[in-house]
Amino acid sequence: MLSEQAKQAIEIAKTIKQQQTDSLKADQVAFLRTDADNHNGVPIPNNMKLEEYHDEVKGEYYQLDNSKDDTVLLFIHGGMYATGSVKSRRNLCFGLLNRLNYDGFSVDYRQWPEAKHPAAQEDVVAAYKFLKEKYQHVVVFGESAGATLALTLTLQLKAAGEDLPDRIAVFSPVITQINTVASEFLMQERDPMLLGAGDPVPYFDNPYAKNPLVSPIYGDFTDFPPLMINCGSEEVKYDDSKILNYLCQKAGVDVTWNVWQDLFHVFVLFDMPETNQALNKIANFLK
Amino acid sequence: MLSEQAKQAIEIAKTIKQQQTDSLKADQVAFLRTDADNHNGVPIPNNMKLEEYHDEVKGEYYQLDNSKDDTVLLFIHGGMYATGSVKSRRNLCFGLLNRLNYDGFSVDYRQWPEAKHPAAQEDVVAAYKFLKEKYQHVVVFGESAGATLALTLTLQLKAAGEDLPDRIAVFSPVITQINTVASEFLMQERDPMLLGAGDPVPYFDNPYAKNPLVSPIYGDFTDFPPLMINCGSEEVKYDDSKILNYLCQKAGVDVTWNVWQDLFHVFVLFDMPETNQALNKIANFLK
Repeated sequence: MLSEQAKQAIEIAKTIKQQQTDSLKADQVAFLRTDADNHNGVPIPNNMKLEEYHDEVKGEYYQLDNSKDDTVLLFIHGGMYATGSVKSRRNLCFGLLNRLNYDGFSVDYRQWPEAKHPAAQEDVVAAYKFLKEKYQHVVVFGESAGATLALTLTLQLKAAGEDLPDRIAVFSPVITQINTVASEFLMQERDPMLLGAGDPVPYFDNPYAKNPLVSPIYGDFTDFPPLMINCGSEEVKYDDSKILNYLCQKAGVDVTWNVWQDLFHVFVLFDMPETNQALNKIANFLK
Repeated sequence: MLSEQAKQAIEIAKTIKQQQTDSLKADQVAFLRTDADNHNGVPIPNNMKLEEYHDEVKGEYYQLDNSKDDTVLLFIHGGMYATGSVKSRRNLCFGLLNRLNYDGFSVDYRQWPEAKHPAAQEDVVAAYKFLKEKYQHVVVFGESAGATLALTLTLQLKAAGEDLPDRIAVFSPVITQINTVASEFLMQERDPMLLGAGDPVPYFDNPYAKNPLVSPIYGDFTDFPPLMINCGSEEVKYDDSKILNYLCQKAGVDVTWNVWQDLFHVFVLFDMPETNQALNKIANFLK
């Protein structure tokens, strides 16, 4: 049974759905970023030191008092490669860091309309390499488009024969930019937050490319590190998780897929008991 | 429970799967067409008169003794816009015509490698218009790529404000050329006939186009005539039927979706009791 807080979150999700359109417009993006920062941005807690990075490596670097010194979390926010922000995901990131007792880096990758593919990919790779110089182990968390980037990061590293992340947790992953899997249609009524079957995001010039760094559905997952997938049962993106789980199983990856019944896309952005359960599960996996 | 003949058909389907490759090669096509004609071509029965059409209108026109004179069946074979043929589908077509007691026209549309999109679409539209001049009612049957063409025919007629077919039955329809719906992956082991998740067919220069005449998943089905969908439960194309049923329901179409348990892609090409059941159902619907 859903908590009262989850039921309230579903009502908020519905208001987000009402504001959605089939295509993302450039003039919406700045508003949506600021709005998300205002609603969800939290200050840095006392047990953390913040360093901001703005050059080749971009993001917020969080160093925890007495953290485990050989492992770091690379956190990759979502938001359709456009509307997301580091600040608006601080609460989620800190929830993981405090459970893990790891330092963390939330990558502030370039997005549309300022940039286009492969800018975000380049920034995520740069952040990973920066961390890999400082820490022996890098674990990765990504949600929505950030989950896509967690996968495309690892596919790119693998193709280049470089060290991979130790573990990856993706939440509500998006593995194809085309939005034509069955759940994009069949879950349109049930998904409280997302419309489904909309236009591809404008960040990609060719969202239809058969390119694993655009749509990891085309990727080879052989030799991937252990992967945990989480999603809600009521997502238009549900089949993305289903297919990703299949592709990883077939490739022999140690994959775990948790479906959170009656919950929605990236519900862990909301403060509720189900979020605590999910973050505990993810932190246990990433340790 | 499957009939013995169906179990044998599944074994034959498996040999077809073994010969498949992820991409269709031009040098395979001529062999596959001839092979299908040799295995499945049947002579014209005594109760039918055959007229062959080779010009703007292409195909085999079958006139039955004592047939209903105001209605005709437009039959559209499948075969990836490449490997199919009119002759190899005669048995299936005659099975429907004898049940319906209608005249029929099996359209010999242009295929790859001789032609590319929209040649097949043009030929199907020409055949429909030819029949519409002779008969008051045209009902349509299409299987696999022929099902796609049944849908794209109707979408084109609708957009042009022309008379639509009275009823449409599609078998194992393909509604997207991209092969990335979940069943393309998840049913790969279970589908006895098709590999799944392969390259798009070479007939389309841009199979990724957001064009309803390429991929009817992008079509508007409002005001479609009554539609019957049939498919096997063990198809990599299963989600195509699932999504088509959804799109039609949402558009208010009188749609019926029959899933044939434990059966495979266009199983009605095999002579078995389940084929008789399915053809009876389709003929009752098309009457």
